[in-house]
Amino acid sequence: MKKNGLFVTFEGGEGAGKTTVIEAYYEKLIESGYHVIKTREPGGIDIAEQIRHIILTPQNTAMEGRTEALLYAAARRQHLVEKVIPALEQGGIVLCDRFIDSSLAYQGYARNIGIEEVLAINEFAIDQYMPDLTIYLDIEPQTGMRRIQKNNSREVNRLDMEKIEFHDQVREAYHKLLERFPERIHKVDANREIENVLDEVKQIISPALPNL
Amino acid sequence: MKKNGLFVTFEGGEGAGKTTVIEAYYEKLIESGYHVIKTREPGGIDIAEQIRHIILTPQNTAMEGRTEALLYAAARRQHLVEKVIPALEQGGIVLCDRFIDSSLAYQGYARNIGIEEVLAINEFAIDQYMPDLTIYLDIEPQTGMRRIQKNNSREVNRLDMEKIEFHDQVREAYHKLLERFPERIHKVDANREIENVLDEVKQIISPALPNL
Repeated sequence: MKKNGLFVTFEGGEGAGKTTVIEAYYEKLIESGYHVIKTREPGGIDIAEQIRHIILTPQNTAMEGRTEALLYAAARRQHLVEKVIPALEQGGIVLCDRFIDSSLAYQGYARNIGIEEVLAINEFAIDQYMPDLTIYLDIEPQTGMRRIQKNNSREVNRLDMEKIEFHDQVREAYHKLLERFPERIHKVDANREIENVLDEVKQIISPALPNL
Repeated sequence: MKKNGLFVTFEGGEGAGKTTVIEAYYEKLIESGYHVIKTREPGGIDIAEQIRHIILTPQNTAMEGRTEALLYAAARRQHLVEKVIPALEQGGIVLCDRFIDSSLAYQGYARNIGIEEVLAINEFAIDQYMPDLTIYLDIEPQTGMRRIQKNNSREVNRLDMEKIEFHDQVREAYHKLLERFPERIHKVDANREIENVLDEVKQIISPALPNL
């Protein structure tokens, strides 16, 4: 059950640039000769996909908040067991787009179930495989939204604007998680150009990389 | 969120007579004029049925123990929210065939995940709706198996015999739960005739019944 690899998760609100940063950092690690995988839940894991299907089926309007949180934790467990743990046990580096902190921020805080409550079921799901490092890409919700709109080449709509309050709550939640897990979670200012963001991410992770 | 009704769960190994006892006690309560429902998970709740389908699909051989425990907790939550809580809030009596203690005994103890670990995710699922009373029908696994065989009119097979050890573990687990929750769980000797078992069940629950 000993871990040999390095488990890094990336967190942040919409438009923070997680996907771009992970992709660029993944390429850099591959070039340097590391054994590395990038993934996100449910990660193509059959059972996790089946669970996500229940969560996302529009007809399931009766879905209660705690049921949903338990289903996310179940899908997380299966993705972890089938994809993340085998890679770590082979000494690999795993870069995962969103993980436990997304549940804590979105469901625990923004959806009001409670951070400690959602943490309890996720600790069960994760067991001893908490991320070694978590990069939190911090962005102003307004800036993140503009970035998304720019990429999608569309105008701001009323729905986007209504959501700003929710995104503010998510950001507030991540700031609480920074205080709750100061050793594990590292905040990176993602309001800057992607090159600067990537440089800082490299500086944070580098000391933890396994020897080649 | 205040509960008015009475939430009673029934637990026990195979062949302990839960179904027979619940049915007989249900009829008695109806005759006495109580508002009462009898149920068991997933209880016809659409989302809970979908979750159970994932657990029970034979193709899902990769299903890990903790994933399964989280899925059971999710199905439990939805059944509780859609069926049990509404009945309790109307002041009804709910008789439920198996609930949290089955997960603690079968998955927590017999399947070795750990009683306290499985308790944590189930406390999340149940929130403030722990059963008011739990009737544990205690039976010798050998006796329970003979009872099932008699009802099914079939012979003992090799598989049944191999399972005895597992059923012994489940019984051991329930005895641990009796120590863990001495106020809530009441042990009833189910090795006796059903009439005697039913009489004792009535005596235990009667003082807790709401006024008519």
